[in-house]
Amino acid sequence: MILRIDRVQTEMPPPSTPDPAGAAVVQELLGGKFGELSTFMNYTFQSFNFRQRQGARPFFDLIANIAAEEFGHIELVSTAINTMLTGTGEKGALPEPKDLLNRQQIIAGGSATMLQDSNGNAWTGDYVTSTGDLLEDLTHNFFLETGARNNKLKVYEMCDHPAARALTGYLLVRGGVHQIAYARAVENLTGADLMKMFPSPRIPTEKIPESQPHIEKGEHKKLYRFSPSDYLELAAVFNGPHPETGEDLEVVDQAPEGFPPFDLPAQEGVFAPDYAPEEIAEIARKLRQKAGLSDEPTGVVANDGKGVVDKVKDAVS
Amino acid sequence: MILRIDRVQTEMPPPSTPDPAGAAVVQELLGGKFGELSTFMNYTFQSFNFRQRQGARPFFDLIANIAAEEFGHIELVSTAINTMLTGTGEKGALPEPKDLLNRQQIIAGGSATMLQDSNGNAWTGDYVTSTGDLLEDLTHNFFLETGARNNKLKVYEMCDHPAARALTGYLLVRGGVHQIAYARAVENLTGADLMKMFPSPRIPTEKIPESQPHIEKGEHKKLYRFSPSDYLELAAVFNGPHPETGEDLEVVDQAPEGFPPFDLPAQEGVFAPDYAPEEIAEIARKLRQKAGLSDEPTGVVANDGKGVVDKVKDAVS
Amino acid sequence: MILRIDRVQTEMPPPSTPDPAGAAVVQELLGGKFGELSTFMNYTFQSFNFRQRQGARPFFDLIANIAAEEFGHIELVSTAINTMLTGTGEKGALPEPKDLLNRQQIIAGGSATMLQDSNGNAWTGDYVTSTGDLLEDLTHNFFLETGARNNKLKVYEMCDHPAARALTGYLLVRGGVHQIAYARAVENLTGADLMKMFPSPRIPTEKIPESQPHIEKGEHKKLYRFSPSDYLELAAVFNGPHPETGEDLEVVDQAPEGFPPFDLPAQEGVFAPDYAPEEIAEIARKLRQKAGLSDEPTGVVANDGKGVVDKVKDAVS
Amino acid sequence: MILRIDRVQTEMPPPSTPDPAGAAVVQELLGGKFGELSTFMNYTFQSFNFRQRQGARPFFDLIANIAAEEFGHIELVSTAINTMLTGTGEKGALPEPKDLLNRQQIIAGGSATMLQDSNGNAWTGDYVTSTGDLLEDLTHNFFLETGARNNKLKVYEMCDHPAARALTGYLLVRGGVHQIAYARAVENLTGADLMKMFPSPRIPTEKIPESQPHIEKGEHKKLYRFSPSDYLELAAVFNGPHPETGEDLEVVDQAPEGFPPFDLPAQEGVFAPDYAPEEIAEIARKLRQKAGLSDEPTGVVANDGKGVVDKVKDAVS
Amino acid sequence: MILRIDRVQTEMPPPSTPDPAGAAVVQELLGGKFGELSTFMNYTFQSFNFRQRQGARPFFDLIANIAAEEFGHIELVSTAINTMLTGTGEKGALPEPKDLLNRQQIIAGGSATMLQDSNGNAWTGDYVTSTGDLLEDLTHNFFLETGARNNKLKVYEMCDHPAARALTGYLLVRGGVHQIAYARAVENLTGADLMKMFPSPRIPTEKIPESQPHIEKGEHKKLYRFSPSDYLELAAVFNGPHPETGEDLEVVDQAPEGFPPFDLPAQEGVFAPDYAPEEIAEIARKLRQKAGLSDEPTGVVANDGKGVVDKVKDAVS
Amino acid sequence: MILRIDRVQTEMPPPSTPDPAGAAVVQELLGGKFGELSTFMNYTFQSFNFRQRQGARPFFDLIANIAAEEFGHIELVSTAINTMLTGTGEKGALPEPKDLLNRQQIIAGGSATMLQDSNGNAWTGDYVTSTGDLLEDLTHNFFLETGARNNKLKVYEMCDHPAARALTGYLLVRGGVHQIAYARAVENLTGADLMKMFPSPRIPTEKIPESQPHIEKGEHKKLYRFSPSDYLELAAVFNGPHPETGEDLEVVDQAPEGFPPFDLPAQEGVFAPDYAPEEIAEIARKLRQKAGLSDEPTGVVANDGKGVVDKVKDAVS
Repeated sequence: MILRIDRVQTEMPPPSTPDPAGAAVVQELLGGKFGELSTFMNYTFQSFNFRQRQGARPFFDLIANIAAEEFGHIELVSTAINTMLTGTGEKGALPEPKDLLNRQQIIAGGSATMLQDSNGNAWTGDYVTSTGDLLEDLTHNFFLETGARNNKLKVYEMCDHPAARALTGYLLVRGGVHQIAYARAVENLTGADLMKMFPSPRIPTEKIPESQPHIEKGEHKKLYRFSPSDYLELAAVFNGPHPETGEDLEVVDQAPEGFPPFDLPAQEGVFAPDYAPEEIAEIARKLRQKAGLSDEPTGVVANDGKGVVDKVKDAVS
Repeated sequence: MILRIDRVQTEMPPPSTPDPAGAAVVQELLGGKFGELSTFMNYTFQSFNFRQRQGARPFFDLIANIAAEEFGHIELVSTAINTMLTGTGEKGALPEPKDLLNRQQIIAGGSATMLQDSNGNAWTGDYVTSTGDLLEDLTHNFFLETGARNNKLKVYEMCDHPAARALTGYLLVRGGVHQIAYARAVENLTGADLMKMFPSPRIPTEKIPESQPHIEKGEHKKLYRFSPSDYLELAAVFNGPHPETGEDLEVVDQAPEGFPPFDLPAQEGVFAPDYAPEEIAEIARKLRQKAGLSDEPTGVVANDGKGVVDKVKDAVS
Repeated sequence: MILRIDRVQTEMPPPSTPDPAGAAVVQELLGGKFGELSTFMNYTFQSFNFRQRQGARPFFDLIANIAAEEFGHIELVSTAINTMLTGTGEKGALPEPKDLLNRQQIIAGGSATMLQDSNGNAWTGDYVTSTGDLLEDLTHNFFLETGARNNKLKVYEMCDHPAARALTGYLLVRGGVHQIAYARAVENLTGADLMKMFPSPRIPTEKIPESQPHIEKGEHKKLYRFSPSDYLELAAVFNGPHPETGEDLEVVDQAPEGFPPFDLPAQEGVFAPDYAPEEIAEIARKLRQKAGLSDEPTGVVANDGKGVVDKVKDAVS
Repeated sequence: MILRIDRVQTEMPPPSTPDPAGAAVVQELLGGKFGELSTFMNYTFQSFNFRQRQGARPFFDLIANIAAEEFGHIELVSTAINTMLTGTGEKGALPEPKDLLNRQQIIAGGSATMLQDSNGNAWTGDYVTSTGDLLEDLTHNFFLETGARNNKLKVYEMCDHPAARALTGYLLVRGGVHQIAYARAVENLTGADLMKMFPSPRIPTEKIPESQPHIEKGEHKKLYRFSPSDYLELAAVFNGPHPETGEDLEVVDQAPEGFPPFDLPAQEGVFAPDYAPEEIAEIARKLRQKAGLSDEPTGVVANDGKGVVDKVKDAVS
Repeated sequence: MILRIDRVQTEMPPPSTPDPAGAAVVQELLGGKFGELSTFMNYTFQSFNFRQRQGARPFFDLIANIAAEEFGHIELVSTAINTMLTGTGEKGALPEPKDLLNRQQIIAGGSATMLQDSNGNAWTGDYVTSTGDLLEDLTHNFFLETGARNNKLKVYEMCDHPAARALTGYLLVRGGVHQIAYARAVENLTGADLMKMFPSPRIPTEKIPESQPHIEKGEHKKLYRFSPSDYLELAAVFNGPHPETGEDLEVVDQAPEGFPPFDLPAQEGVFAPDYAPEEIAEIARKLRQKAGLSDEPTGVVANDGKGVVDKVKDAVS
Repeated sequence: MILRIDRVQTEMPPPSTPDPAGAAVVQELLGGKFGELSTFMNYTFQSFNFRQRQGARPFFDLIANIAAEEFGHIELVSTAINTMLTGTGEKGALPEPKDLLNRQQIIAGGSATMLQDSNGNAWTGDYVTSTGDLLEDLTHNFFLETGARNNKLKVYEMCDHPAARALTGYLLVRGGVHQIAYARAVENLTGADLMKMFPSPRIPTEKIPESQPHIEKGEHKKLYRFSPSDYLELAAVFNGPHPETGEDLEVVDQAPEGFPPFDLPAQEGVFAPDYAPEEIAEIARKLRQKAGLSDEPTGVVANDGKGVVDKVKDAVS
């Protein structure tokens, strides 16, 4: 079971210049073989399928808990893509076909994220490996994170849109923690010192400017516990020195606080959420009143009530 | 972001007679076009992709919150399949090929759930529809839940394994709530009275014996809020009379408590979690000690410390 | 069984400036999840799979008959794409790779339609839902037409090539009729008033200039009977007022007359129909003579014998 | 455009003993790479994509016309599968999982045809080859029909259900005509004498008992013209001696008369068309009355009004 | 470039009792995600795509050379499957549908291997990972071999047909060498001691009776050089002690001799190679004579000229 | 079994101006339905699955031997793509998203070949047809080569990069030989004179400037034997006059000599083979020394020791 919190794990920039080509490339980090949907689904199903979870509790806790963080990552990648696509669904101003690497982001998705990779191919359950063999699954996960890190580094280089940079700067740090976590789990299970394989790819994360603020906050050595009550044995496997900095790896006994999401503006040209979004807002207001709820929306968003919406609107027009 | 809780939404029976043929059929409810992975992923990405979420807050809250419940459903279907497969991975006693409708549950999955449907085809991101158009997405979701209910009813009939029956008995009730929720959302948005389309398929859930205990507890009319802090506007759309019983629909302001999961026994013949699982347990114990954690596993499971494990072991041998 | 008539359902413009980027986008209306191949195949197989067709005759007739019209739609979308691609297969002048969103239209298709969507992914039988449950299938069909209308509106906006506009202008009107037809079928079966959900997406078709001539001819309220002898009970479900105009829905007791297709010019550079098409023509002439047929081709085409061919040739050169 | 006629091309037996295993095998003839959906779609799109159709009219007419006949073949295969599955969706008596080679025929399809092959994989648009190069497409079509004949012969041997035998007995004869037609087209275009390649596979159709009645009626040498007005130049390519019997190939200037389809009984257990099909019938009756149509269904079916329905019901119970 | 030698890498048993269910399971080792087609294609394309091959020559040589051995493995798996299917394509005696886990082995393949996994899903190019990053590719390859070993062990347990046992007994030994080779390559590149991860899965290969004869011949510690002239630097990475036995790893400077393949008997019922195979043989004889070649076939097969053919024929009848 | 030789079948130009758009188009010749991976895999598996190989030896030898040549073709296409992509993975200078038709060549492949077609869809085992029926498989292969020739001609026209032209100029000649070989095999088996169907498509290869040097060397009429010891009966089927020139077809009793491959330069920006490739080179040198091998790399490459590397480096910078 999960509880959902309407916040994103890192602060993301507001929409600015639309970048549909970049948004097509960032899809690799969502729906690619090494994308976040793969990491989320792999760890989630490995945790569902785990046998003898009591007897292997520290390992179960590790996989199940990282799965929970990965949900936040598919949310973040989607946020970045949707931010980059804001402005591509304006009324009467849809993009030219020739400017669209991924046509379905507009036609099928409503200027939004698809469950596809950067070539526009759908994510598939085939990308999940859940063999039940603990050592094999951990080895797989270490490799999967290595592949994910490779792709993040390239997407970082290829896309200079602020949302893409904020995304990859953050994910490189957090994915790096998971890469270490699985390597340490293998080490703790077998004695093989996989720490010597870091960094892989062989460029240190600290060279990425957008990663540095997160490293300064120690995000590169912390594993958060994403549960009010469970997954208490993380420290049994996530421990020892960080392979690059030598600092001690740390388990943080709660989830990070996160940041309120942006309320992305309507894109009437793709009917998101409608051709006449103000009518939806009016209906929503009446329904809220009828239900005895507050007059104004209760949700907290980054651009709430402070004129940010207008600035965003300006930015994309 | 999510927090994960290591409990399942309904009480599931312990492993008993292995049923690999049934377990292959239940896959439809996991990875089929109308399976729970489809409902989870559809609502999750619709919530990520939602535009003007403040202006359409009650609808956003509905979709985002049901997505959270659906995570529990993919967990439950996996639990049922894994329970039905317990006993198919015993050392030196793998099933005969001819008895396996889905060979990969054993070979690839380790006597466990695959991200596939009942014909063994992988789930694909193509099964997600997230257009951004609120009315269209809600219409889709109502239809998706209708298809899901159809499939649950058939799987219920085809599979008499206790785990399959417990699963479908529960999911029929909870999926029915989601079917109503989306129909009500359409009604509240447009005025069209979709309540007249219930039940669809046209067999009342209350006829299913395994659903009755849940109906008696009122589970057929409650929408739980799966968040410590967010999704406060559910009542603005989830309201009015239940289409079949006429009772008032209710929003429950917290998640259900859930039940501890079973610690499914090792299946050494498929190396889950190892060919020598007791060695894993010994390593885990030492790691826990070294980290200064408790000597015994901290996790709470249904068969913990009460001899249930042995009974389960007996049941599958 | 079918009889085939070599005419297209609406008048299409001759080839003009080639538009391979637009032609790639229009593929969504052919091979996308909500494309015309999906509507054609869904209704066709639902009619094949229909049980108790006598007892549910009006509904069977509706689905089977709309299936027949949809054949004309896959023909029309292909016609538009092929028209837009005329000029991309000229001898010695194939397009630059960088100008091609869909490379296979040229390489695999011979400057022609592929069974793919706008991202170049193949149509799949997974897109067909044929559950046998009448209410569920009708609900699905209503939703499918809604999704189709969404995509047509966006493709209309994105593509200004005359063939794309003629296509979408027409399909929006005819698809709108099918959307109403299935909604009415649900209403007549259950009493739920789905008419309140129109238009969906919430932009009236009459705002589309290219749709207006068809609306003026009443095409938005007519259901044609595409059979010399069967499907006589359409009026039992297709009746009542049009949801937007209030006019009475009408069943027309025969198929529309249609228009002769264009004889699209050869594209020697992609060997369609040959590197030396005049040789094919000469062989054809001789075969016709040998068989005692007319000297000249018997087929009727839009550009037959009136110098139009040359004008087309000019247009694309 | 097409006109649809509610008849099937050959007489099919009524439902008898259900044969879900056989029905799974017959799927190869529907959705396999060489199945009828492939032949239908290949020729249909080749005709849509045809360039210089006037200049190559006899060849265009051949392909376009055979496409029309193929629609009747996907209808026939579906009819056979649905007939074989009648009795697998009875209320309270769904088949055991272990007896189902294709679980989705029951769960997704409602005891009906899927767009899949015999391994349960979905048909895909990748199976269509439409290059525009006339000689290449004709060569392809000859090869496709050869593969189709191979599969029909094997399915004939593997499935002894009367519906499978009636189907394959008929399709072998008609597919054989198409195989000859395309070979003759290649011959007439190039002079290569492909007639020497017959029969391929090298077993004469006349050895198949269920094919003999059709051969006796001359169905093995006739090409029907499936159009009220078009495709008049078939004889320019379909001519000369039959490669096996030496008889003259013939063009028949109209479609065959066909046979009324069976009204397949409801399968309440899979909700086809409903859990309470008599209610649907009652609603249909009222709708017919309200529309001023006849009291009784107007459609003509094989088992109409002569007690056959009851016999069928008996057969499957 | 390659030279092909018409021998198989290990001695395989002749056809005996047909085992189509087992043959469907063995497909996992051919077309599964971790099957031999995956290993062959991964290493082949990694070698094609290798950059700076001079500068990283020992690693290039390792990957390129193992790719060559893997060709022999896809050949062996196919040989096993075809052996197990011998007897399923007899004239007038095709298997019952209910006995076929993979129908297409008979219908599409001619009682032969498909490019599919054990669930009948096609192998896909998505299974290839070729990132260009040497460490990442080597890590991947080590993991891939681990997954392959897992699957071989399970297929060994599930299938007791002599061909399946001979196959898996041999592949476990040779795949084990590749698993070590890639682990050593990682070690030699980074210093991480992956040897501690062996065996993975944690069951020693020497426990498999059918592997023991190969281990006795030292096949578990030898890397053969499959080239007349190239890949001379294998010893720079394939060296050190065997992780389980401590024996020195060895590079053998030539390919193994191999064994002549069986001449599998015709299966007339599936037209392989024909419905009347003796006619093919007669044509072949004449063509040989006309070309001035020997009267008898020149190829060397295991069952040539010693009455073995007849014994095989007996075995399958 | 195979032996691998580290040479390519024709001389390829060094890297020059990067051409990622062209490289995306050339993918069709690798992973398209009619690409070289299809020809390689079709013939390879047909040879594995061949029954009665002694009785049909000349045909077996033909298919098995051409399979061996096709390995060289997938190597050549990859070489061309990788050459065209050299320069797209430079440190700090990855291409703009908008310039990439195939994003995964950079992100997933490391500026290298993917197992995909020109639309970026993965190659699939479905593209293999191996029916066991000799005549059918030969017919298929003739058709497959025809489709391959069509695609090569178009890619030739669309891509003017020297590597693409060298590739297609060569493949057109060699593929033409295979097209003839299979046509002759059909002729020799049945008597049908398929030679009349050449050239298909109907443009003679000798018109292609880049093909002419190969034709001058007689490469259009020679079938090489790619084996040290086997496939001795090729001449029994590959004989008679060339269909276009009338020259005698020839069997050459050994493989062509080939050319050393280029050592493609590192692309540090995509970590191929590393972010710091010189470190890899240093490690390799030490490993070689430790193993007692030569100090310098032993492999022979086109740009070895003669300053060519530097020129290549210049060309791509």
